[in-house]
Amino acid sequence: MLIISNDEVRTLLTMKDCMAVLEEAYLERHHQRALSRPRTDLYVPRGDDAYYVFKSMEGLLPVKHVAALRINSDIIKWRKTPEGIRKDKQPLADGNWVGLIALFDMHTGKMMAILPDGVVQGFRVAATGGLAIKYMARADAKTMGLYGAGWQAETQVISACVARTLEYIKVYSPTKAKREAFADRMSRIVGIPVIPVDKPEEAAQGLDIVVATTNSITQVIKPDWIGPGAHVSCVKHLELGEDVIAKADFVAVHSQLTVPENYVIGQGEKRIYGQDPNEHGEHKASETGWESAVELHTILGGEVKGRENDEQITCFVNNIGLGLQFAAVGALVYSLAKERGLGINLPDGWFTEDVHP
Amino acid sequence: MLIISNDEVRTLLTMKDCMAVLEEAYLERHHQRALSRPRTDLYVPRGDDAYYVFKSMEGLLPVKHVAALRINSDIIKWRKTPEGIRKDKQPLADGNWVGLIALFDMHTGKMMAILPDGVVQGFRVAATGGLAIKYMARADAKTMGLYGAGWQAETQVISACVARTLEYIKVYSPTKAKREAFADRMSRIVGIPVIPVDKPEEAAQGLDIVVATTNSITQVIKPDWIGPGAHVSCVKHLELGEDVIAKADFVAVHSQLTVPENYVIGQGEKRIYGQDPNEHGEHKASETGWESAVELHTILGGEVKGRENDEQITCFVNNIGLGLQFAAVGALVYSLAKERGLGINLPDGWFTEDVHP
Repeated sequence: MLIISNDEVRTLLTMKDCMAVLEEAYLERHHQRALSRPRTDLYVPRGDDAYYVFKSMEGLLPVKHVAALRINSDIIKWRKTPEGIRKDKQPLADGNWVGLIALFDMHTGKMMAILPDGVVQGFRVAATGGLAIKYMARADAKTMGLYGAGWQAETQVISACVARTLEYIKVYSPTKAKREAFADRMSRIVGIPVIPVDKPEEAAQGLDIVVATTNSITQVIKPDWIGPGAHVSCVKHLELGEDVIAKADFVAVHSQLTVPENYVIGQGEKRIYGQDPNEHGEHKASETGWESAVELHTILGGEVKGRENDEQITCFVNNIGLGLQFAAVGALVYSLAKERGLGINLPDGWFTEDVHP
Repeated sequence: MLIISNDEVRTLLTMKDCMAVLEEAYLERHHQRALSRPRTDLYVPRGDDAYYVFKSMEGLLPVKHVAALRINSDIIKWRKTPEGIRKDKQPLADGNWVGLIALFDMHTGKMMAILPDGVVQGFRVAATGGLAIKYMARADAKTMGLYGAGWQAETQVISACVARTLEYIKVYSPTKAKREAFADRMSRIVGIPVIPVDKPEEAAQGLDIVVATTNSITQVIKPDWIGPGAHVSCVKHLELGEDVIAKADFVAVHSQLTVPENYVIGQGEKRIYGQDPNEHGEHKASETGWESAVELHTILGGEVKGRENDEQITCFVNNIGLGLQFAAVGALVYSLAKERGLGINLPDGWFTEDVHP
């Protein structure tokens, strides 16, 4: 049983490899040879305007004989800011957060590894956005605009550069110093100009690819800013808002199950879709309705075209994650860690039992 | 982060303590101050007449500030025997099985402990059966009949003896040598005669408490064997069958959610209730229908009487487990392990992260 750290994941994972294993996993999913269990979120109010939230999801990828369980044990506060409502996970675990991936071997049942989810999380979200660019953006897309300057924005820049040969990227985020530091850092990483812009519209107007990767749960892009032929995507559909999505000629989603299944203490063991446990509308039922939307895997599988022509506006809603992503990326991380002798080995026997469970 | 072994759990847990913490947890549940996420089972056929099955469930118990996740990573075969269909978990993890409980601190989010589920499993099922005896059997119940001679039968004998002062127990299981060894061993443990019987009816006729704790998924008790005033219970409703349950004047269940939520590969990310992924009818929809049954916690909470008089036949269907049980018993095990310095301490930092998840 291997304990792998975020630092090790960082040295092991490349965006290119990550996109390749996810592409394979989505094809497996398309052929119904993979399985994910929808994310469930359990909410308990703490009495200090925060919630304890326990999230879990699972994915099984038989071709790699890996089952993955992703767990988040969070204390979350929602707060109003001039830019909208923001959700903040409180780092109360000695200044850290708690997000874990446990990997299991489907041949033996054994737990193979535990690793933090942070680095994988950035990779898998961005890699999926990158695959959407690969299959949905114009073949000659050369420019990108980006909203957000956090860790998800960082990996999104890299996956876009894997998917297309870009000439430059414009980035907007509300804090000037933050977007400038981000642009400076990312320019050096991807080797093309990453340009901080002062007005939000400049990160969309006239650009081929427009991506929102913020922690905002209110609209950050206006429909007027999006021109013909653009590919637009987001990590939360609320970042785009209904009118931006409505402007697209073709919309695909990561999963038709847009909202997690919520269980809220005091309401019995009842599953609640699209309700509002935190009273901030993050998962409003009115904003769902993706039940019959095209899922990304059907485009990868060749069943549906990602784009019909160079004039269409395409939109990818990189909504709720799938356990499958953690199985695919986790399997890759695990095999590389074994190959390179990384991670801390714990006795397998600590995690098996001779008592019939 | 503490790694606790089954052997340590055995030295730490007593049935009396276990019943006490579960009683408290059920009261919390009754007052809607606890939360469980229904068990989900993910099925993938292996191609060798077995399935890989990944099960998980969760429970949050704020009064103890503990969240528990219970995981089973099993390879399961179903086989026909003269006594009915049996389900066998294959010990392919170096000869062992894989069932784990992970405990989280709701104050900080931190993972507090990982322990195998085997010993806890025996305790929590039997403790719940014991609480049902406490609240539903006649106050003067003095005799018990038992079906099964496995590990669950063992703990069930102990919890019955905590709930009532018994004079003797009769035990039946199909293999003579097994039931005799069991009776011999248990007599010494509980200090009252445990008598092996050769005919199945002898473990029910004229007895005050009749409990089925087998791994059979077909009926083991006939309705004619149950007399007035008896309290009957089972760990799977199929052990009793519909006619035994129908004979009872009052029936309570552990949970109204009798069947887990199944996801079967090849059928999309669809939740399937009561279907038959393994084609052996373990979770047939026709045998469910407990959606409005009385749950044990309502009896503990004083809302419903467990028994009206000494003539009634009462029946407790100790059906599907609740994550809450693992939170309650897990919290107890963890606090005792800390108190007595047991378990292997791993650095907390291995299981937290400074990367925002």
